[in-house]
Amino acid sequence: MNFLSDTTAPAHPKLVEAIAAANTGFEPSYGNDPISARVEARLREIFECDLKVLFAVSGTASNALALSVLCPSDGAILCHDEAHIHRDERGAPEFYTGGAKLIPLGGAHGKIGLSELDRALAEIPEGFVHTSPVRVLSLSNLSESGTAYSVAEVRERSERLKQRPAFVHMDGARFANALVSLGCTPAELTWKAGVDALCFGATKNGALGAEAVVLFGPVMDRFEALQARQKRGGHMAPKMRFMAAQFEAWLEGDLWLDLARAANARATDLATGLSSIPGVEILHPVDGNEIFARIPESVAASMRAAGAGFYQWPDGSARLVTSWCTEPGEIQALIAAVG
Amino acid sequence: MNFLSDTTAPAHPKLVEAIAAANTGFEPSYGNDPISARVEARLREIFECDLKVLFAVSGTASNALALSVLCPSDGAILCHDEAHIHRDERGAPEFYTGGAKLIPLGGAHGKIGLSELDRALAEIPEGFVHTSPVRVLSLSNLSESGTAYSVAEVRERSERLKQRPAFVHMDGARFANALVSLGCTPAELTWKAGVDALCFGATKNGALGAEAVVLFGPVMDRFEALQARQKRGGHMAPKMRFMAAQFEAWLEGDLWLDLARAANARATDLATGLSSIPGVEILHPVDGNEIFARIPESVAASMRAAGAGFYQWPDGSARLVTSWCTEPGEIQALIAAVG
Amino acid sequence: MNFLSDTTAPAHPKLVEAIAAANTGFEPSYGNDPISARVEARLREIFECDLKVLFAVSGTASNALALSVLCPSDGAILCHDEAHIHRDERGAPEFYTGGAKLIPLGGAHGKIGLSELDRALAEIPEGFVHTSPVRVLSLSNLSESGTAYSVAEVRERSERLKQRPAFVHMDGARFANALVSLGCTPAELTWKAGVDALCFGATKNGALGAEAVVLFGPVMDRFEALQARQKRGGHMAPKMRFMAAQFEAWLEGDLWLDLARAANARATDLATGLSSIPGVEILHPVDGNEIFARIPESVAASMRAAGAGFYQWPDGSARLVTSWCTEPGEIQALIAAVG
Amino acid sequence: MNFLSDTTAPAHPKLVEAIAAANTGFEPSYGNDPISARVEARLREIFECDLKVLFAVSGTASNALALSVLCPSDGAILCHDEAHIHRDERGAPEFYTGGAKLIPLGGAHGKIGLSELDRALAEIPEGFVHTSPVRVLSLSNLSESGTAYSVAEVRERSERLKQRPAFVHMDGARFANALVSLGCTPAELTWKAGVDALCFGATKNGALGAEAVVLFGPVMDRFEALQARQKRGGHMAPKMRFMAAQFEAWLEGDLWLDLARAANARATDLATGLSSIPGVEILHPVDGNEIFARIPESVAASMRAAGAGFYQWPDGSARLVTSWCTEPGEIQALIAAVG
Repeated sequence: MNFLSDTTAPAHPKLVEAIAAANTGFEPSYGNDPISARVEARLREIFECDLKVLFAVSGTASNALALSVLCPSDGAILCHDEAHIHRDERGAPEFYTGGAKLIPLGGAHGKIGLSELDRALAEIPEGFVHTSPVRVLSLSNLSESGTAYSVAEVRERSERLKQRPAFVHMDGARFANALVSLGCTPAELTWKAGVDALCFGATKNGALGAEAVVLFGPVMDRFEALQARQKRGGHMAPKMRFMAAQFEAWLEGDLWLDLARAANARATDLATGLSSIPGVEILHPVDGNEIFARIPESVAASMRAAGAGFYQWPDGSARLVTSWCTEPGEIQALIAAVG
Repeated sequence: MNFLSDTTAPAHPKLVEAIAAANTGFEPSYGNDPISARVEARLREIFECDLKVLFAVSGTASNALALSVLCPSDGAILCHDEAHIHRDERGAPEFYTGGAKLIPLGGAHGKIGLSELDRALAEIPEGFVHTSPVRVLSLSNLSESGTAYSVAEVRERSERLKQRPAFVHMDGARFANALVSLGCTPAELTWKAGVDALCFGATKNGALGAEAVVLFGPVMDRFEALQARQKRGGHMAPKMRFMAAQFEAWLEGDLWLDLARAANARATDLATGLSSIPGVEILHPVDGNEIFARIPESVAASMRAAGAGFYQWPDGSARLVTSWCTEPGEIQALIAAVG
Repeated sequence: MNFLSDTTAPAHPKLVEAIAAANTGFEPSYGNDPISARVEARLREIFECDLKVLFAVSGTASNALALSVLCPSDGAILCHDEAHIHRDERGAPEFYTGGAKLIPLGGAHGKIGLSELDRALAEIPEGFVHTSPVRVLSLSNLSESGTAYSVAEVRERSERLKQRPAFVHMDGARFANALVSLGCTPAELTWKAGVDALCFGATKNGALGAEAVVLFGPVMDRFEALQARQKRGGHMAPKMRFMAAQFEAWLEGDLWLDLARAANARATDLATGLSSIPGVEILHPVDGNEIFARIPESVAASMRAAGAGFYQWPDGSARLVTSWCTEPGEIQALIAAVG
Repeated sequence: MNFLSDTTAPAHPKLVEAIAAANTGFEPSYGNDPISARVEARLREIFECDLKVLFAVSGTASNALALSVLCPSDGAILCHDEAHIHRDERGAPEFYTGGAKLIPLGGAHGKIGLSELDRALAEIPEGFVHTSPVRVLSLSNLSESGTAYSVAEVRERSERLKQRPAFVHMDGARFANALVSLGCTPAELTWKAGVDALCFGATKNGALGAEAVVLFGPVMDRFEALQARQKRGGHMAPKMRFMAAQFEAWLEGDLWLDLARAANARATDLATGLSSIPGVEILHPVDGNEIFARIPESVAASMRAAGAGFYQWPDGSARLVTSWCTEPGEIQALIAAVG
């Protein structure tokens, strides 16, 4: 029973099979292979629009690469105070942008509050040489608290930026989990709601290691610059076909959505079970595959004794993450053990 | 008959099998998995010394990561004028070092000339605030001309640096090819000859995508800084076990050496064959799996007609690269077709 | 009656005379002149300790240079949310450090609150590769709200860092104003209270353009690195003697303290006068030469009609800055006009 | 008799007087003062075109600032192997551009050779993601060997770039010396010959510390970005009027040209005198105020005994620099002493 992180889970077997299947003969390197092209075509169908895509080996890389073409080095990026790009990437966005400024904002349940956003925008002028102007709003969906921004919540935040030469970035390391939770289409949750660039994560949802940066409409003309940064950052893998093959299998037959639904369902069950235990407090809506809970020490000890691994968060709460391969029986067993 | 690049070749099946075998259950992420630990232990045996290692997805990444902990942002890196780090990485070393200066040096057959090295060292003072001091000497082995620095050649260059607070970096994207060609041990070609950090490439020699940065003796204490940069550069893959598994299988039973021997043997045969064709001039010693040749246009046309792909180099010559899976029959057929 | 900023004021005549006096014959360039050496010696007397110093043309430069040798590119700098280094330097600290992360903290009256500092330190772990570790605490004295950290306030904040490999930076653009307000010695307010590097500003207090970075005890060995960055940042002025000459005249006979006392006295008088006007609210203690006040629009209009220039702050309040050359009569006239 | 460098010379008294004259009352800061505006207007007359200008405290700063808006971080800058930006600025161009690549080219007498330029352009492709594309050609006029590119030489080099999205930068630390030597107009030597940005140096020719970045035609729209970088680099001096005042006095009545003529005349006389001494070899045409000579040790010793200071260059030759205030009598005395 491992609830430490979805990054500790194995990959779905179909993706490993796809890698083996892709391992035949010579293919053009650096992303010029036919599988990469097929994945881009498939993403156009899924997102119902023209788009550009490239792959990277980690979510930190895809976020930093995307931000590097959205924000100049002397600009600012608004994000939630608990955003992965601010707290958990060792300054990768600052590195890739050449020193852009991240401005952390508050907001309940890991989502940037509208009033906090408005205050920041009011305080940061345009055209004032002394101050880094806002060039990017970054939204994590799922957020770092496991909650999902609805389509309307994305839109009302992205619209706040429309008076400025600024873009909206979505950290979608758990985009699939948010999507199936919200029940909307990929298009609705991204470009139709004002998102310019999506970091579309597969690794936490069944891949071995495959993330995609997807550029929509207004920023598609930055794709060449994005490729240059992919190269310069060391992320243009020579045998890219093996990363593309993972995406192809993951998208095939909506496997990606099925895997996310499974992980989310386990989280819902786990949250329900935990909330029935005296003293346990679920801290945020469980919109995806993450649960944050305040758990009495005796309960936590029982859970650990039952074999469950999970992290203690900096604020003292517990984070439990389900994955595509968490079994319903594991949830039942855990709740039974501590109930 | 594909001689374009060893990056267009498939991976060796044993590495794909190793990935599948590693895909069982939950494992710690970010390099803390047991396979990564086993690879490090195995490398200590192979290099006959203590060392530190981490993985990256491309040779550009491993070079840039290594250089970023060897050279401060206001230092200089000496390399051959045709070095991959100078010509083919879109400025990745400048990016990762925070703007260090690459100083290109001449030298026959892709190897830094001793006189050119001495002149550069004489011209670049220590302790002069206006000038970027030499902090790294970077040697590519194989070189970009397909030649190998012998142990003695590495040593006499690295010794030139020993009066300075400087380090020696080896770009070993084709290290295995150099090693089997020279017939020396890994230790002899690296730390025993003064190399502080080796970028040890597997991708061009049978891996799907796996490169290692290896730190020896004096720079092992920079490993924590290296990890920080690996994270910051987006190269700390969440499910690192799959990269480690490739290395484990590749090193197992000296597969890596066998694959390099095969590629080198094909190159030797191809060079022998080509040199017998009137008008063809082999430009550099063929020490590994690369051949650079001046080829009359009619011959080149015949080769292409026979199905052989290869690159035209900026200087007008042809580059032909053999790989671990190039068949002896392919070489014979090609020579027969144009002979 | 100009209360816009002390940067709009002229220089004290004695500093211009010193420049003219320094303009004789040939002198070593780049800071190797005898005047620079004399200033360093004088600063050792003033600060009662060994130290290293170099000059820069702006406070932004001196802050960024100092931070660049205190904080690695993958580290974090704690500062007040309204700190000049965070709000008003267009990302210069991020630029000079190679992308370090600034973490803004709250606190009343422009001073970092102890609870906010403690919370940040609790949340940011040491030795966790994913998170930028705290390497610098930056205190502005005067703060951006015109208040002064007392010696005790500096010390209790700097002590919070002593468990970590971290340093304390003081942005002293208005250090003289804080010093004379507090009535302590330069040593007490800096290294004796845990400050490792002081950006010592003269420009706002009578100089034409002269700022100093002063390194104390534990960071003095970073002086060579600081010089390299001064050069690399383009701040090693060829004819440095003219910047040094300003400092020499400014320090001579405690002119710097007299000028700060004059500016502070004018601010005290102005604050007293303003606070007697119905509807005017002084927002922060006036510890130096800056007043932040909420002023009814009718009063503000009268002040402007009387010829007084001042800025409206982002929060809607008014900032009024006195300078070394503000005349007592100007204060009286302004209060009389609006009283 | 100081021939070490024109940076060790004092400033012309008229510039000091101008600083004193500018020190009256309050003025807008950060370059928004009326003197700055007047200098820009005057430069439009001198260069016979519209242009944008800003000031910096050193030639290293003005070069790096200019290059930072001409070259993206993943681009390349072609320069002479001995260029100041490559050899003597501690990597400032790499720093300010965010890691652009400097590619050093050969050429006689410090001037980039046409064949070397053509070879580099032939070797560096456009649109190849692996290679940093050429975005800037940098010409130093005077060159680092004291020679001047003629208008035709500038033009034939700049025209080589016109097929690419690239710009021409001129390092004009000694632009005045080149100009009076060539006898052409400022417009002819810059924008009419294809120069997009000029770093126009006054410090070595009579100023206390004043350099200007001048943007012409096609790159004028990068002025806002240039200002942002000026701020970010710490070069937006608060009391900019004092830098502007130097330029105003320097340009007034063609003082700048008179000073350059004086320095050049002294250099010509010195070169003539030296060349009459047995064993002395003048290595490069003396087009400005610098002489490079191979001087027998006995002669050099006599020169030093006569009180003459000069530098030994890395190649063993001697560099002698005259300045605006070198006296004809000093030249005569020196030649007499060693003749």
